[in-house]
Amino acid sequence: MQARAAETLVRDFCAAWHRRDLDAIVAAMDVDIVYWNLPAPPVLGREAVRAFLVPLIRDTIAIEFELHAVAGSEAGDKVLTERLDRLTFPSGVLEIPVMGIFELRHGLITAWREYADFASIGEAVARLGVSLSPAPA
Amino acid sequence: MQARAAETLVRDFCAAWHRRDLDAIVAAMDVDIVYWNLPAPPVLGREAVRAFLVPLIRDTIAIEFELHAVAGSEAGDKVLTERLDRLTFPSGVLEIPVMGIFELRHGLITAWREYADFASIGEAVARLGVSLSPAPA
Repeated sequence: MQARAAETLVRDFCAAWHRRDLDAIVAAMDVDIVYWNLPAPPVLGREAVRAFLVPLIRDTIAIEFELHAVAGSEAGDKVLTERLDRLTFPSGVLEIPVMGIFELRHGLITAWREYADFASIGEAVARLGVSLSPAPA
Repeated sequence: MQARAAETLVRDFCAAWHRRDLDAIVAAMDVDIVYWNLPAPPVLGREAVRAFLVPLIRDTIAIEFELHAVAGSEAGDKVLTERLDRLTFPSGVLEIPVMGIFELRHGLITAWREYADFASIGEAVARLGVSLSPAPA
């Protein structure tokens, strides 16, 4: 895959987030995806990611990944992004400055690592009284 | 500047870090660089960055930016990286998983933003008994 095609795949993935379309989000992922919000433990596998995202999609009113920069590696197997993620809850807006890397194979996302300041997110989450963790089973 | 040339500029910048060559590090920066370790306040201007980096260069034995991914934007004005930064002090090694973005103009770095988990860095810094802040004037 060329760098530009890989970038388009990631832009389409972000568009699925903007629609809060969980099926489309998960369909872009390899079954064995490693989704890692450092320094939390990684979420392993597409179905675990779906379970992780259900409460987020349910509890938000709007989601926007404002893409400040996107660049695909020369080999087309990695796409790096700088974003401002904006999650709107009934109680307010959570803005997360973040960089993320997407690893691709056969047109699917095999790994997604997110780098952000965890304490800042935790403070905002507490202030809004929301949860970013999966609902208890 | 093409994406690949921009990537080479950033690789050369990392090489200057590996030599702990403060003059070469600073020479790669625009005089008005904005160097921002989120969520700390940005360091504004090349001379302020030099003052910020003096104690780091002085107190480390070795510095390595292990580049896991590098990608230049199509326009060649931005380079995004995923790295494991390894700072070796006499008291031990500080490893920082980080993504960083470099904005370039006329072959110089005009902005450098780093995304990492601040609390993790703070804990490691405390454990090693080192400082990452500028020495008091």
